[in-house]
Amino acid sequence: MEKVALISIDFQKGFDDPVWGQRNNPNAEIKIALLLSQWRKNKMPIIHVQHCSVEPNSPLRTGFLGNDFKDEAKPISGEVVFTKTVNSAFIGTDLKSYLEENNIQSLVIAGLTTDHCVSTSTRMAGNYGFNVTLVSDASATFDRKGEDGVHYSAEQIHNIHLASLNGEFCTVKTCEEVLSSIE
Amino acid sequence: MEKVALISIDFQKGFDDPVWGQRNNPNAEIKIALLLSQWRKNKMPIIHVQHCSVEPNSPLRTGFLGNDFKDEAKPISGEVVFTKTVNSAFIGTDLKSYLEENNIQSLVIAGLTTDHCVSTSTRMAGNYGFNVTLVSDASATFDRKGEDGVHYSAEQIHNIHLASLNGEFCTVKTCEEVLSSIE
Repeated sequence: MEKVALISIDFQKGFDDPVWGQRNNPNAEIKIALLLSQWRKNKMPIIHVQHCSVEPNSPLRTGFLGNDFKDEAKPISGEVVFTKTVNSAFIGTDLKSYLEENNIQSLVIAGLTTDHCVSTSTRMAGNYGFNVTLVSDASATFDRKGEDGVHYSAEQIHNIHLASLNGEFCTVKTCEEVLSSIE
Repeated sequence: MEKVALISIDFQKGFDDPVWGQRNNPNAEIKIALLLSQWRKNKMPIIHVQHCSVEPNSPLRTGFLGNDFKDEAKPISGEVVFTKTVNSAFIGTDLKSYLEENNIQSLVIAGLTTDHCVSTSTRMAGNYGFNVTLVSDASATFDRKGEDGVHYSAEQIHNIHLASLNGEFCTVKTCEEVLSSIE
């Protein structure tokens, strides 16, 4: 059977800090917990990605509580964790060679945030030739303001980024669609 | 004086094919021509990126007219061209080592399309540690439909992608702002 790795990106406590603003998909943590549970049940490969910010005030910086994984997405014994300092899970890490050495060609990606770390990692995975599924409702982002001062809601940003990624870098699916395809 | 390279991405005739749908920023070609002219006048480094699609029906495939550069963005003798087959100008090319060997740390990026090749290349450049400026009005994209069937306009997609990139991977500026900063 084909090996499909679940890549859980940056589900860390620091993203609960109010500094990030309004978020969409408040149930993304419930969805990643469901995916992790199914992957563990099926003994399929799980990869956790942890952002270890080098910015002095980041809620995700190393050594602070916000750097910890959220309860719903905590690695268990034997699961692989890659730490990173930039958005892409492939830059400054051995993720690509790990996937190649373990003969993993298909990835299911979910995490925080859709338009920063999730998008960047998905784009590189797709361009490297991996077969990528991105889980829409197990990912989320925050409101942002454009350089022109216009305010965009987290939901608008999330949906437009999925539209740009789908069919070009990955296939976008819901958690339910992913779970029903692997059971 | 600091070396600032202009990276002109995928300004190719194949993007005039109606298959792509409605586009925004119809003057992006005029803007890239202005940028190229100023860079040439100042003898600053110029890098052209050309998409050589391996998809059999792509208007950008090698050997077809659409693969050619548009008149406004044609390389002249002595300018560097990197060809690529995926979205990122850094994957499957020697762009990163070229920049490092030539001691270039600052990049001004513009091209087609904002949310596919331009975004992916900008993200990787930023994550590699380059100082990146993205030129808003010298880049453009096309309308897209989400996996949920919702239609998004090129202008909406363009603006939201710039909002996600600005301050995280790059600084977004207009062509006029860039030109006035280097004159």
